[in-house]
Amino acid sequence: MMVIATPYLVFLGDARDALAAKTGQGIVDWRGQRVVGQQRLAGCAADLGVPDLSASAAQRLGARTLVIGVANRGGVVPTSWQAPLVQALEAGLDIASGLHTRLADVPQVAAAAERCGRRLFDVRHPPDTLPIATGRKRAGQRLLTVGTDCSVGKKYAALAIERELQQRGVAADYRATGQTGILIAGAGIAIDGVVADFAAGAAEALSPDNDAAHWDVVEGQGSLFHPSFAGVSLALLHGSQPDAVVVCHEPTRTTMRGVDAPVPAIRAVVEQTLALGRLTNPRIRCVGVALNTAALTDSAAREAVVETGRGLALPCCDPMRDGVGVLVDEMLA
Amino acid sequence: MMVIATPYLVFLGDARDALAAKTGQGIVDWRGQRVVGQQRLAGCAADLGVPDLSASAAQRLGARTLVIGVANRGGVVPTSWQAPLVQALEAGLDIASGLHTRLADVPQVAAAAERCGRRLFDVRHPPDTLPIATGRKRAGQRLLTVGTDCSVGKKYAALAIERELQQRGVAADYRATGQTGILIAGAGIAIDGVVADFAAGAAEALSPDNDAAHWDVVEGQGSLFHPSFAGVSLALLHGSQPDAVVVCHEPTRTTMRGVDAPVPAIRAVVEQTLALGRLTNPRIRCVGVALNTAALTDSAAREAVVETGRGLALPCCDPMRDGVGVLVDEMLA
Repeated sequence: MMVIATPYLVFLGDARDALAAKTGQGIVDWRGQRVVGQQRLAGCAADLGVPDLSASAAQRLGARTLVIGVANRGGVVPTSWQAPLVQALEAGLDIASGLHTRLADVPQVAAAAERCGRRLFDVRHPPDTLPIATGRKRAGQRLLTVGTDCSVGKKYAALAIERELQQRGVAADYRATGQTGILIAGAGIAIDGVVADFAAGAAEALSPDNDAAHWDVVEGQGSLFHPSFAGVSLALLHGSQPDAVVVCHEPTRTTMRGVDAPVPAIRAVVEQTLALGRLTNPRIRCVGVALNTAALTDSAAREAVVETGRGLALPCCDPMRDGVGVLVDEMLA
Repeated sequence: MMVIATPYLVFLGDARDALAAKTGQGIVDWRGQRVVGQQRLAGCAADLGVPDLSASAAQRLGARTLVIGVANRGGVVPTSWQAPLVQALEAGLDIASGLHTRLADVPQVAAAAERCGRRLFDVRHPPDTLPIATGRKRAGQRLLTVGTDCSVGKKYAALAIERELQQRGVAADYRATGQTGILIAGAGIAIDGVVADFAAGAAEALSPDNDAAHWDVVEGQGSLFHPSFAGVSLALLHGSQPDAVVVCHEPTRTTMRGVDAPVPAIRAVVEQTLALGRLTNPRIRCVGVALNTAALTDSAAREAVVETGRGLALPCCDPMRDGVGVLVDEMLA
């Protein structure tokens, strides 16, 4: 598993708006104590509310890694970023990126890393030394967030559950399975970038044996009902062997992202997940539903949460509006 | 999709027994008309019953590709093979291999291919330009062989069904998803070597739109019940969107290969496959069971076939002993 050195300097480049900088915002929201500042180029329209620093100033404040916290059109490294990235390497920082293009494939950056003895982390591209899954039951507790679709809040639900558990004094670790989560957590495996034969094995490696009372909170990917990605979701379910799952759902969405297919019912996702998950953990259970109600008014959001919970007889909340106390109550019950 | 030029010279190296040459045997069994001969080195203990030829003699008889028809310990290219492989390239043949080690990573062989302008096909390593699956229903008919486990006869059942369809005058193509099948068919995609995000997309690319009455017969991989590989099996099921499935089973096996898990009941595999397959093809149905009874006596095999078919109320056969007529009858019914 990749482990990225902290603290971070978050690089926002020339982000055209706050949405383009959402990876950086996620790092500040969930791991703010690991961020010494941000670096912005001319024209940057995003602001994470942390100190503006040069790479060398950040290094003097203890920063170990420059993290690219901005998404770019096509996932490439623009020419205008090359000089500041080289300067960061020269200042003694590693660089971590979730862009499609590998830093290692940008000649100027690769050469500077080599010259300065710094590391480049291309977190979308997992190591190629992962094991085949064994199906062996591991010690410790695991929760997996699953979804009715892609991009419904599985990552944030998992991070919120980790935080709530830790606030209650329960040992817990968020386990990242996608590029943004890896940059937030500083470690993880981009499960959808793993060769298919090794995807379940990667999920096993991600949440190793642990103390009996410890919880790994694994970030879900895709959906068992998504025709493009269900295989990834199933490999992650089998390899994570969760004791508990939370189903994540966006109540205003009618069509799955990227395909011409309806969003499945939450109940169908619960049933399918438990039926398939029993293969590697017969004790799997659903501990609730996390709704992403960002598109609803306060009153409509409240009604959606109440109606969904009542209809399914399961704890239900919007992690952003309500916190995840009801889910964690059920996990620990 | 890789397409390998035929006819073939099958290279057996110094195969220590007939089992080590089973890829070569498969090519002769299923595509014998495309084989001009075999090349054997000193100490080879296998014989495919076709003419022994040098690379240059094979080339004069029309051969276009030397296919490595022997499995080797660890999947590597032994030093003793390098000279004959270089000679084949110099004689004007391409080389195709299903070994783990890439021919392209053997410096002597790679240099000779470059010098002679010949192609190297490393069929375990799929192209990295595959699409994300769309879930769009394609024209034409498709059958997928699925399994209660790995290595239960899915490839041979699919090849036998292709042959039976063609003998009845039905347009049909076997679609290979593993290295041996690709070498037999001369084309295909090693689905388990595809990056997980693209596995269903690879399956879609493998069986493109076709005439309404045409059948693609897709080689299955793994099992929906195998904790190491179920994600691969599900991606293949969704991307293949089969109209018909055949469940393959080895009746003497009690534990799944490589893991400490029981072999599932055939009925459970039928039900799970249909339930999950409906996502991309609501008309999916099971047309029968193919038993691999190689480990049984004739009378025990007959009894297993009769009892299994009766118990499930499905057509049942051993493709090797009985042919697949009963399965094809049901496909075309």
